[in-house]
Amino acid sequence: MAEHITIEGLTPAVDGGRYPVKTVVGRQVVVEADAFRDGHDRIRVVLKWKRERDRSFQTAPMDALGNDRFRGEFVPRENTRYQYTVEAWTDHFASWLDELEKKVAARLDVRSCVLEGVALVREARGKARSSDKTALTSFAEQLEESAAAGEQALHLARADKLGELMLRYAPKPDRVAHSPALDLVVDRERALVGAWYELFPRSAGRVPGKHATLREAEGRLADIRDMGFDVVYLPPIHPIGVTNRKGKNNVLKCEPDDVGSPWAIGAREGGHDAVHPDLGTITDFDRFVAAAHAHDLEVALDFAIQCSPDHPWIAQHPEWFIQRPDGSIKYAENPPKTYEDVHHLNFDAPNVEELWQALLSVVEHWVDHGVRIFRVDNPHTKAFPFWKWLIAHVHARDPGVVFLAEAFTRPKVMQHLAKIGFSQSYTYFTWRNTRDELVEYLTELTRTEMRHYFRPNFFANTPDILPPILQHGGRAAFQMRFVLAATLSPTYGIYSGYELCENAALPGREEYLDSEKYEIKVRDWNQAGNIKDLIRRVNRLRSEHEALRTLANLDFARTDNEQLLAYVKRAGTDIIICVVNLDPHNAQIGTASIDMRLLGLPSNGRYDVVDLVTGERFNWGEHNYVRLDPGARVPAHILHVQR
Amino acid sequence: MAEHITIEGLTPAVDGGRYPVKTVVGRQVVVEADAFRDGHDRIRVVLKWKRERDRSFQTAPMDALGNDRFRGEFVPRENTRYQYTVEAWTDHFASWLDELEKKVAARLDVRSCVLEGVALVREARGKARSSDKTALTSFAEQLEESAAAGEQALHLARADKLGELMLRYAPKPDRVAHSPALDLVVDRERALVGAWYELFPRSAGRVPGKHATLREAEGRLADIRDMGFDVVYLPPIHPIGVTNRKGKNNVLKCEPDDVGSPWAIGAREGGHDAVHPDLGTITDFDRFVAAAHAHDLEVALDFAIQCSPDHPWIAQHPEWFIQRPDGSIKYAENPPKTYEDVHHLNFDAPNVEELWQALLSVVEHWVDHGVRIFRVDNPHTKAFPFWKWLIAHVHARDPGVVFLAEAFTRPKVMQHLAKIGFSQSYTYFTWRNTRDELVEYLTELTRTEMRHYFRPNFFANTPDILPPILQHGGRAAFQMRFVLAATLSPTYGIYSGYELCENAALPGREEYLDSEKYEIKVRDWNQAGNIKDLIRRVNRLRSEHEALRTLANLDFARTDNEQLLAYVKRAGTDIIICVVNLDPHNAQIGTASIDMRLLGLPSNGRYDVVDLVTGERFNWGEHNYVRLDPGARVPAHILHVQR
Repeated sequence: MAEHITIEGLTPAVDGGRYPVKTVVGRQVVVEADAFRDGHDRIRVVLKWKRERDRSFQTAPMDALGNDRFRGEFVPRENTRYQYTVEAWTDHFASWLDELEKKVAARLDVRSCVLEGVALVREARGKARSSDKTALTSFAEQLEESAAAGEQALHLARADKLGELMLRYAPKPDRVAHSPALDLVVDRERALVGAWYELFPRSAGRVPGKHATLREAEGRLADIRDMGFDVVYLPPIHPIGVTNRKGKNNVLKCEPDDVGSPWAIGAREGGHDAVHPDLGTITDFDRFVAAAHAHDLEVALDFAIQCSPDHPWIAQHPEWFIQRPDGSIKYAENPPKTYEDVHHLNFDAPNVEELWQALLSVVEHWVDHGVRIFRVDNPHTKAFPFWKWLIAHVHARDPGVVFLAEAFTRPKVMQHLAKIGFSQSYTYFTWRNTRDELVEYLTELTRTEMRHYFRPNFFANTPDILPPILQHGGRAAFQMRFVLAATLSPTYGIYSGYELCENAALPGREEYLDSEKYEIKVRDWNQAGNIKDLIRRVNRLRSEHEALRTLANLDFARTDNEQLLAYVKRAGTDIIICVVNLDPHNAQIGTASIDMRLLGLPSNGRYDVVDLVTGERFNWGEHNYVRLDPGARVPAHILHVQR
Repeated sequence: MAEHITIEGLTPAVDGGRYPVKTVVGRQVVVEADAFRDGHDRIRVVLKWKRERDRSFQTAPMDALGNDRFRGEFVPRENTRYQYTVEAWTDHFASWLDELEKKVAARLDVRSCVLEGVALVREARGKARSSDKTALTSFAEQLEESAAAGEQALHLARADKLGELMLRYAPKPDRVAHSPALDLVVDRERALVGAWYELFPRSAGRVPGKHATLREAEGRLADIRDMGFDVVYLPPIHPIGVTNRKGKNNVLKCEPDDVGSPWAIGAREGGHDAVHPDLGTITDFDRFVAAAHAHDLEVALDFAIQCSPDHPWIAQHPEWFIQRPDGSIKYAENPPKTYEDVHHLNFDAPNVEELWQALLSVVEHWVDHGVRIFRVDNPHTKAFPFWKWLIAHVHARDPGVVFLAEAFTRPKVMQHLAKIGFSQSYTYFTWRNTRDELVEYLTELTRTEMRHYFRPNFFANTPDILPPILQHGGRAAFQMRFVLAATLSPTYGIYSGYELCENAALPGREEYLDSEKYEIKVRDWNQAGNIKDLIRRVNRLRSEHEALRTLANLDFARTDNEQLLAYVKRAGTDIIICVVNLDPHNAQIGTASIDMRLLGLPSNGRYDVVDLVTGERFNWGEHNYVRLDPGARVPAHILHVQR
């Protein structure tokens, strides 16, 4: 049945409410909706919200924006699930007041009209408590006495007190709420905002070729914290299989001293819930987590659902794996590629519920050891229903656990993983280099419905991805891509070595030469040419400016040189303008044109800006000369607009 | 629970399926959807549709468009409600074939892989009937024998016959359909396409001041049909109230011989189901309908839910009306305007169901007398739930009844009336004059979700609306606005007198001077300067070219003169290019630039066009010189692209 009042076009919403919207604690949620009714009566529109577990909603009025659209807002304060909806009803009193105003203005006889109002007030009085009842009685009497005098009746009818009482006690006919209420996942801040640093703990030592321990890895934390990172992400720390172990540079045959890929999980010493003996014990891990916390760092663990041929589950649960016609267990492959050191689990197994439960136990095990961030390896090759179930179960115990999806796959699959529960996602950022590519991709992330559920984590490199721009662009490319990642997305990351501008690749590939995935590396963390100072400064700016901790506050600015990317990030009156030279080889000159409305200034206005990295000061207007040199201290401006 | 396979982004859809999509019998419905699954398996995607009353769906394959999007189509053949959805399942056989192809290409050992395929074929065989069972057995055996020879196995596996049998008999795991199925209202053609002519039958006589009868109005039908119209729309034909009857030019006090407004419905002689005695009897009405049908014309009646003070319902059902505090019945008003000759019905009345039923009876009465089109007066001031109910009930008896909403109100209210059942709608066309205004409005109508449910009826004038462009633009303005209405919208209309270029207005108003709403007019239907020949020609083009009977096939073309509006309408290979001079006072010269991809031609291609009104021929390319003179025969080109 259609209703008198329609409420539709509710935003934010994901697929019309089919999936929850995401936000973080303490951020304002701005809700809009179209609301209208048939006929000429006025409606009143309110926003309602509650924690999912609450019985009753809180309420706030919504303001009319014109064209039957209304806006309201609330701030969720708790890391839990919320619901919100919009409610409206016919406001006969407001409709009547409208009519009275028009009639008085047109000098028409209002006697009959005033009496209609008196009847409305008397009706409300029926529900009022003692002193309010008296007040409404008095209003009704005064209105009735003034019925012949339009101006006087109108003055009375407009009394604030009468309006309040009528809102409280008048019936709410045709009341309807948008149904269903929309779900809102309110995560902790870290689900949206964080600077990530990825490191292989076995490479934390100082003796080339010697496997480092978690104890030694603790020694890296001060440096990482000093660069301003929030999260230390460790690739799998579990025992590594020996059968079919890969050698250096991913060769099929390994040497006796090869350490293998940490993603070939499981050996005689244990599986996903064990610590690699060469790294130490579970106690060492607990120590590492505590040390990280002491440095204001969180530890993120890798959750990679795959097993080496030596994983205990192979023997205990052969039915969890895909069997070949000859009864053997199939190894992972993506023809022509083959992964002989890894077996996939079979999410179509008959007893898959047991597998789900075992995997949940793994996650809970590490949560019990202080891990509240999981970087999930290739979630798109596992089952969607499993992820939805797993994340919901983990969140039921601890809603603060963050899941990062490493799904470098088709757009809709990546989006779907975010819709069904992943807190944040790796992105295509690594392969977006030109101004047009960056504008198009960031516009998709920040202007479409994606901004309500898909949180990007802009990794500038990973152990798997050393993009051509870094291979060939030198130090300026590392600076440039770092500035882009750290200012375009509230969450970003680098894999260790980035700060040293490591750029040796396998020829013609995006893979690192002598990749740390297959061997131990020892580095001089302060070697010449590093960009740690820039990283430190930009991470500090991120902590000082909410504009850099917000995703959808991005406005690109026009430039007349396609090698210059310019954008504005705003949070209230705090405004940052970035201009980045995308060319790591040449100085670029151009004009950056700022939409002055974003600054609340007329198009001929002027304003001062300070470069937050270099301290330089400029006086800017709408069109601004920019020169950025890859040979200079930084090939970018991060400008703060002075008030 | 999330599924392995997700189907989303189904189009066409209105508000995500909350309201039905509309089409007409015989038009192809193109359905698209995103469909994807987790993991690497292939999926098969099909379109399913049925008449609402059918138990089972028909099925057609959908083609992959890339980026996980699929497309299929069907043609509904019956004027009734349909449903459609998209279904998908995991296709293990296709996935296996993929893997086999890749392994053969990579020259890997395929023995184990082929045996997996053999198992799939044997599984399907279990469900096959006799000869198919034999065929599948044979395929399985041959595959098994060829297991060592990759190329041979692949050749066998790719056999069309095997593919067909596997599609028929293999299990369909993870099968899921988009839920709910979407509703589709399949109207008869007239709901989308029609040329309307509005006339006051009482003005059909030849003696000034003398009330004409329906019999006399029959005399107008040949001329209307000769102009090529499809629908004759009559304002209310019911008895008109005498109490507070309005005089000529809407003055409050009428003279004894004033005929009153036909919208002040109801008198001693009857209400909404009666015929005005001066027009004749119900038998005369039946004759009129029959005469219209004999001329291939349909009759549309006005359905205006309001009552004069003399309407029988006022005495029979005072509770259906809004009562004033003194017990009298409130007349219609929209302060400062007052409508003393009309009372609104109260859709909040306690016994409103009886009112609904009475109004349904009125509509059914006229349906029984051959009326299948209703122009509904101000539906937005009545209740939404009522319209939804009424239209559904009428359609249950006769799904061919067309309802036109005359709701000149806010956009979302107009849209909502279309969503809940109105077949077509009056629009803002009358007030869209400049190129930018027309492009913006038509883009909204043809490129947004509105195209799936909101069918415009472009009236060029109405008894209430004589827009300034017609008041001041002379004959060229009438030609220009007519060409726009008749070529931009599949349904359009004019109110009689338009063809004579009548343009006398009340000063400073959009109202006609001496409006026919309040008096009888007698005209010379062939007076000099009429544009009947143009109307006749364009209406013939509309019947000859499906491109002009389709709404969303509109592409605007660029012009370098803002007084020239150019657009392309396509239906398959039938392509029409219109260029219209929007300036009724001056000749305009410019270049119309056609997107050559619309014509399937390279950008340097040439093509011949014929002006379908004047017969002129031109050779055109991408950029084309145009000169249109308001003093010439027609200030527009309607060009047909020659093949």
